Amino acid sequence: MSLKDSLNSILNNVEGAIAVVVMANDGIPIDEVTGPQSDIDIQLLAVEYATVLKEVRRTVDVIKMGGLEEVSIATSRICAVVRVLNEELFFALILRRDGNLGKGRYMMKLKSFELTQELS
Amino acid sequence: MSLKDSLNSILNNVEGAIAVVVMANDGIPIDEVTGPQSDIDIQLLAVEYATVLKEVRRTVDVIKMGGLEEVSIATSRICAVVRVLNEELFFALILRRDGNLGKGRYMMKLKSFELTQELS
Repeated sequence: MSLKDSLNSILNNVEGAIAVVVMANDGIPIDEVTGPQSDIDIQLLAVEYATVLKEVRRTVDVIKMGGLEEVSIATSRICAVVRVLNEELFFALILRRDGNLGKGRYMMKLKSFELTQELS
Repeated sequence: MSLKDSLNSILNNVEGAIAVVVMANDGIPIDEVTGPQSDIDIQLLAVEYATVLKEVRRTVDVIKMGGLEEVSIATSRICAVVRVLNEELFFALILRRDGNLGKGRYMMKLKSFELTQELS
């Protein structure tokens, strides 16, 4: 399965999914898939979430409670789940606020290993 | 119901809950309750999560996708759910990694209004 296929399998199986994007820590998107109704600036989100992730990684180092696995951010309009793939890469699922967050998190966990393999 | 009672009703109803703490944005804890097996430095967590929340708030302002409601951070050992109460206050639930995150998020949403009332 190609990287795009893996991302699409998340996008198409999670109700309310708007986009799935794989990114480097510096905020450069590596690959992305978006649903038909996406009016969101994925490039902007990529850079911004990369900055947040950097701050969260720093925090997690300070609190010494194990390695960072996942961050989710919910606003009144969207929800983003960000999952760490390795030291350099992460991927994010953007959902509508009424989307299926639980299934999104589950699918991301499930596809995490596959994505890491495809990117190594 | 007092503030501590409200916090305890979350702590006691969520499997795997370690602590619930109400904080100001500057990281100063207002009130907290902890479970019997807590060996976590809540003061340190409070300050660190306040810093993360500040960064996330900035990001959410930039991406213009509505107001921030909730942030969750999962490491290999713990999971923290942080929920915004108002411009100045937030509260956080710290769970074991195998704790009931879904119920935690639900209980926090449910108690959010009550806590805001008690703090105003």
